[in-house]
Amino acid sequence: MDLNLMRELSVKTDTKIVLLILDGLGGLPMDPSGQTELEAADTPNLDALAARSELGLSRPVAAGVSPGSGPGHLGLFGYDPLRFQVGRGVLSALGVGFDLGENDLAARVNFATKDESGRISDRRAGRIPSEKGEELVGLLNERLNLDGVEVFVVHEKEYRAVAVFRGEGLSDALADSDPQRTGLEPLPVEPADGSQEAKESARIADSFVEQANEILADQHPANTVLVRGFGMHPALPSFDETYDLDAAAIASYPMYKGLARLAGMQLLKEGEGIAGEFETLEANWEDHDFFFIHIKPTDAAGEDGDFERKASVIEEVDALIPMLLDLGPDALAITGDHATPAKMKSHSWHGVPFLLASPYTLPTADSFGERSCAGGSLGVFEAEEIMGYLMGHALKLNRFGA
Amino acid sequence: MDLNLMRELSVKTDTKIVLLILDGLGGLPMDPSGQTELEAADTPNLDALAARSELGLSRPVAAGVSPGSGPGHLGLFGYDPLRFQVGRGVLSALGVGFDLGENDLAARVNFATKDESGRISDRRAGRIPSEKGEELVGLLNERLNLDGVEVFVVHEKEYRAVAVFRGEGLSDALADSDPQRTGLEPLPVEPADGSQEAKESARIADSFVEQANEILADQHPANTVLVRGFGMHPALPSFDETYDLDAAAIASYPMYKGLARLAGMQLLKEGEGIAGEFETLEANWEDHDFFFIHIKPTDAAGEDGDFERKASVIEEVDALIPMLLDLGPDALAITGDHATPAKMKSHSWHGVPFLLASPYTLPTADSFGERSCAGGSLGVFEAEEIMGYLMGHALKLNRFGA
Repeated sequence: MDLNLMRELSVKTDTKIVLLILDGLGGLPMDPSGQTELEAADTPNLDALAARSELGLSRPVAAGVSPGSGPGHLGLFGYDPLRFQVGRGVLSALGVGFDLGENDLAARVNFATKDESGRISDRRAGRIPSEKGEELVGLLNERLNLDGVEVFVVHEKEYRAVAVFRGEGLSDALADSDPQRTGLEPLPVEPADGSQEAKESARIADSFVEQANEILADQHPANTVLVRGFGMHPALPSFDETYDLDAAAIASYPMYKGLARLAGMQLLKEGEGIAGEFETLEANWEDHDFFFIHIKPTDAAGEDGDFERKASVIEEVDALIPMLLDLGPDALAITGDHATPAKMKSHSWHGVPFLLASPYTLPTADSFGERSCAGGSLGVFEAEEIMGYLMGHALKLNRFGA
Repeated sequence: MDLNLMRELSVKTDTKIVLLILDGLGGLPMDPSGQTELEAADTPNLDALAARSELGLSRPVAAGVSPGSGPGHLGLFGYDPLRFQVGRGVLSALGVGFDLGENDLAARVNFATKDESGRISDRRAGRIPSEKGEELVGLLNERLNLDGVEVFVVHEKEYRAVAVFRGEGLSDALADSDPQRTGLEPLPVEPADGSQEAKESARIADSFVEQANEILADQHPANTVLVRGFGMHPALPSFDETYDLDAAAIASYPMYKGLARLAGMQLLKEGEGIAGEFETLEANWEDHDFFFIHIKPTDAAGEDGDFERKASVIEEVDALIPMLLDLGPDALAITGDHATPAKMKSHSWHGVPFLLASPYTLPTADSFGERSCAGGSLGVFEAEEIMGYLMGHALKLNRFGA
């Protein structure tokens, strides 16, 4: 999306936009003659909505390229995912609510198990419970003492945490210490370019690992840490300045909260489960003009290869659609950040079904599915364009040119 | 295609990709209510394959722009055809197996007939037989003596040859000497920009023509040469470095061999005819992970305006599809480099039917034709993206971003 064009044309109105993301929504038939998860799901409400909506297939990043959650969502928010790249450490830091400064360096930290020979025997430290993880993070924060930088370790979940290094002249051009496989020694953190900043940052990260090893020496199975996904805050233009939107986000997983915060959205406290997220939407309806709602379990079911469960999560969302429509959104998009076909048990590059409901649509089908979307009036288009369509359908863009 | 992205994400696997090109595959109905060549052809194997494939229409270069073979194929290989431009002389030089250096200047040479008034009476010298062409090339190589550069003339076929000038500071900013019509005098080779290199190169090319005229004076009808398509080696990133592929090419015409060599593909010795090319594929199946197969006669039939013959070439290829499928390619694309509708007797800009078979497809139709492809899940897309899709479907790309 041309963000300058959006900034130039955006106009404040009292219309409301909802972007409902079913993570990993796109799917595939398990065999060529079959249906996809979305096609197979019983979705009377989505189908009725499709019959008065625009349809299309959105492409997340580039032909054949499977996106991670970061690029997948940046595209949905209108940012070129190839231009704005976000390290996993940054997403995690924002996800736990850490107020990341512009010069902070963030990294993912996994507690892990090292055997007597110094090799990694478990990259997740036996999946220690969250209470234990929290206790170890406390120990690290108490005892770590790095030369020249402050360090903050924040617990995420179970064996996962985030480390944030705060100081002058840090760089995220750093390789992971995680060897990715058990039976190997952890790698030293190496600078990924020749800059002085990268060298100095690598030294700091290595000394972090070294001190953590000493602090955790008696904490088997969590007797070491692996660091990866170094990143710094990307300078994303906010939703407010780009689209003149007062945007709110409803998401239950840290990473998606983090992504929404990157775009300057306000995080709303979500209720329990999918229905709870819709209740949060209802409760906050008057206070914002843009809502991003993130539903995770579609992706999780796809990753597990569970076609039926993915279809049934879609059905659960379908049942909540009338509640959403009752709020009267002026422009409503329903799509995913990428496909996670149960057949592939992973994110994929395939086109993602996209539906846009507003009073100004050109309907082409009476069901919501990959193939009805393939024949839709939006064709196959870049996910990065979705915000443009939403702004247009909500009548929030001035005419371009005389 | 973003070649840096491909380079970053590519991963070596044991999956195999086949890119089968029917040159000029795209067609048109002879009258609006009719079928295209591909639609009219009886293609049970391609139709069955389509029913388990992704379909789309690929666009070679830009809206309304008919590509030559060079840009058509560069796009198929993932290179931006507007950025990477290749002179015809370069293609011919590579096609005859000439090991073109980075500073060499290549041009197509046609033996031609000049009448007593100095006008061109036959641009192909009565289509002299290949033996005669070869003899004349020998004469030229023996007697040419250019100031400051080496010159190599290599015979191609019948009246066609290639000249390669080797020296310092050469430029391919040169206009053709070929007047394109009989009854006109050949043009002097003019520099196409104001650079010293172009001026000096034009002087060299003109003195090449002048000496050739002397050498060929008694060789009626081949008593002169026309030079055209000046070009230098474009610095194309190879398939190996871009996609981490060990690529092989099977093509029966010099130009397509040349294009494949530009991309760093290994040329395989093809058997006789279309079936021979498929036999070559079978014989070399274990030795490469990417195969480009080029089938020429579809284009030739289209250029001749022979709808029936074009359809029957397609049927000949259809009959060989089972042999190809028996090899078990992990990702198989079947398409053309551009359309050559019999109705137009020339290359055209129309969308080219595209089929991609893999285990991870969203089929939308049960036949392979322009109109089934127009409704496919890939929509209308840039030919340059084909390699991305093939790499994705062959599971040769890492996920992008966290």
